[in-house]
Amino acid sequence: MITVSRKAHFNSAHRLYREDWDDAQNLKVFGKCSYPNYHGHNYNLVVSVTGEINPETGFVINLKDLSDIIKQHVEEKLDHKNLNLDVPEFKGLIPTAENIAVVIWNILREKIDKKLLLKIVLYETERNFVEYSGA
Amino acid sequence: MITVSRKAHFNSAHRLYREDWDDAQNLKVFGKCSYPNYHGHNYNLVVSVTGEINPETGFVINLKDLSDIIKQHVEEKLDHKNLNLDVPEFKGLIPTAENIAVVIWNILREKIDKKLLLKIVLYETERNFVEYSGA
Amino acid sequence: MITVSRKAHFNSAHRLYREDWDDAQNLKVFGKCSYPNYHGHNYNLVVSVTGEINPETGFVINLKDLSDIIKQHVEEKLDHKNLNLDVPEFKGLIPTAENIAVVIWNILREKIDKKLLLKIVLYETERNFVEYSGA
Amino acid sequence: MITVSRKAHFNSAHRLYREDWDDAQNLKVFGKCSYPNYHGHNYNLVVSVTGEINPETGFVINLKDLSDIIKQHVEEKLDHKNLNLDVPEFKGLIPTAENIAVVIWNILREKIDKKLLLKIVLYETERNFVEYSGA
Amino acid sequence: MITVSRKAHFNSAHRLYREDWDDAQNLKVFGKCSYPNYHGHNYNLVVSVTGEINPETGFVINLKDLSDIIKQHVEEKLDHKNLNLDVPEFKGLIPTAENIAVVIWNILREKIDKKLLLKIVLYETERNFVEYSGA
Amino acid sequence: MITVSRKAHFNSAHRLYREDWDDAQNLKVFGKCSYPNYHGHNYNLVVSVTGEINPETGFVINLKDLSDIIKQHVEEKLDHKNLNLDVPEFKGLIPTAENIAVVIWNILREKIDKKLLLKIVLYETERNFVEYSGA
Repeated sequence: MITVSRKAHFNSAHRLYREDWDDAQNLKVFGKCSYPNYHGHNYNLVVSVTGEINPETGFVINLKDLSDIIKQHVEEKLDHKNLNLDVPEFKGLIPTAENIAVVIWNILREKIDKKLLLKIVLYETERNFVEYSGA
Repeated sequence: MITVSRKAHFNSAHRLYREDWDDAQNLKVFGKCSYPNYHGHNYNLVVSVTGEINPETGFVINLKDLSDIIKQHVEEKLDHKNLNLDVPEFKGLIPTAENIAVVIWNILREKIDKKLLLKIVLYETERNFVEYSGA
Repeated sequence: MITVSRKAHFNSAHRLYREDWDDAQNLKVFGKCSYPNYHGHNYNLVVSVTGEINPETGFVINLKDLSDIIKQHVEEKLDHKNLNLDVPEFKGLIPTAENIAVVIWNILREKIDKKLLLKIVLYETERNFVEYSGA
Repeated sequence: MITVSRKAHFNSAHRLYREDWDDAQNLKVFGKCSYPNYHGHNYNLVVSVTGEINPETGFVINLKDLSDIIKQHVEEKLDHKNLNLDVPEFKGLIPTAENIAVVIWNILREKIDKKLLLKIVLYETERNFVEYSGA
Repeated sequence: MITVSRKAHFNSAHRLYREDWDDAQNLKVFGKCSYPNYHGHNYNLVVSVTGEINPETGFVINLKDLSDIIKQHVEEKLDHKNLNLDVPEFKGLIPTAENIAVVIWNILREKIDKKLLLKIVLYETERNFVEYSGA
Repeated sequence: MITVSRKAHFNSAHRLYREDWDDAQNLKVFGKCSYPNYHGHNYNLVVSVTGEINPETGFVINLKDLSDIIKQHVEEKLDHKNLNLDVPEFKGLIPTAENIAVVIWNILREKIDKKLLLKIVLYETERNFVEYSGA
């Protein structure tokens, strides 16, 4: 078993807040991230796939294919978008780094061979990041 | 003459578009950056100040002071904000990296001793950045 | 279960040597790190916390709180200090990256909810780093 | 148990192709990596060793020793070489990142105390990397 | 006048040697870079263009256009190629970082509006890089 | 004219203070950097040399030679040292990043061919750096 990883990136706007909380409570919990007109990030995404090396190709997965899957199903959906307004998965789900990571993992899990293990790391900034492997 | 630099960062949302153009023209020129609900970036800012070393302190400028100026006048103004909606300087000015750099340079130029030369580099992403020194 | 990480940093001086060894033996084992007048590093610290996402906030832990804990209990203690002379934990303990990591982990473990798993990575330089999760 | 890591690097040429496939099949699977006259990479290698801290030295392993092992047995063998033509381990083995990682791990496993666990991460580019720990 | 920069990358093989020198002389001057079967690098390229901001778009140059020019005229030509064997510009020209930079600059100078100043930085590794602006 | 650069690094301890000031004044000007028992940094140094390409070698300067000069005259002198106590150049000179840069530049200027221009950038941290070219 060996793990191969591919790095991707997308730039999105978001805001952290709950409609059922008043502004003071949102500010207390979410700080500047609750500001009303959104802010944004350059998200970096590392997708890691674990499996056996195919002896014919020397690949666990062809990184060209993995890169295309990420482009088509993650970047197309999230890049240059407002996560709160434009992405249906975040209707009723606060777009914290944790929740974005779970959404991305669920999307990719559907598209990648079930024999392969899947883990992602999502960097919101260079200083804040999350890691999710579905369990 | 020696140059000292200090790195800072802020996270903002923005959108590139002209109200006097239709959507097709905005999309043609600004691409995904014209999407209606904003996207965002982790901006990295490097502020460089050139002058003589003060022999008493060994400093061109005390970086603690420079850092405070950047925090108070740039980060407070731009961090976790929507540049189009929240920042008066961008009323009628498209918040491209070039224009953001000029706005920041003009703000800092007012606050830093005129005997010191000022240059900034603004990274919109790791791949796109601009440099401005006022001339 | 998902893991969230926060990066911090501190700058310290240290020296690796044993008082019960002579200079030649210290130099043989610790090399330049045993030089008598100390040297130093920009330490980068990544603190990773694993738990369930709180559905109310979308957070495993509020990174603002985690950041404050690191600042108050790690950075205040180690930043701009001489690890050998100023930090009681290193009386009788050689401040190798391994031992610094264990000291930091023990400090943080006391301050972070026991339901959350804790791992740290400590970078002494870009080329040398250690990882510790308490077991 | 604690993990210490050391980063190294080497620059090599390689080509991905199978002699028993025609050019079209090689191009389909390996893309530009199958071009006939080789291309190359700045490989970055992180070697991670896990064990107990030796209380006498504060080290899991002396990183000077680990660095020397990597230099002598990995860098000497691969640096400024053509992996396909110059390195016997790749006769009959396609030098994908996966296979290079396995080759390096097997070399290092022979040279590092069996009581210590061994993992490596090999970066082919900043965007593509593999991780192998022997199982 | 303001400067905008765009980062690109390509992976190539090369070898530094002179046919009119014997192996010993090549090894003395070029070291490991003269090894016969080539080695390679992940080259990073920063292309910087200086001019006035177009008030209609807020751009010095549309970075999408600049990125396309780099892709079509530099990456297509050099990426996954052997610089000595595949790139006509290096017939009779040693592909040192200096010479590669001059070749790239000359290519780009033809394709970018003469009213704009052009500078490039070419990173052969993280530790070695060259800067050229045509004069 | 083209510029080639080489990156190096060294790890040192230092303290910023003036003996003719009391502790309160030192703390006011130098902050934590005045703490009595020293702290330290991983300094990164970029040495840039500008000149014409030698048509015989394709080099402005052989980077192997430049690297050896840096190693012998800068790293040997500063690495794993206490700048205040171990380095004669800082007797009576506060080891700010500015002053360290001037000291390094003066050392290198003596060792590098006078036909070549010399510039250095010294990173004290990722966030603070200075640039000096002798004028």
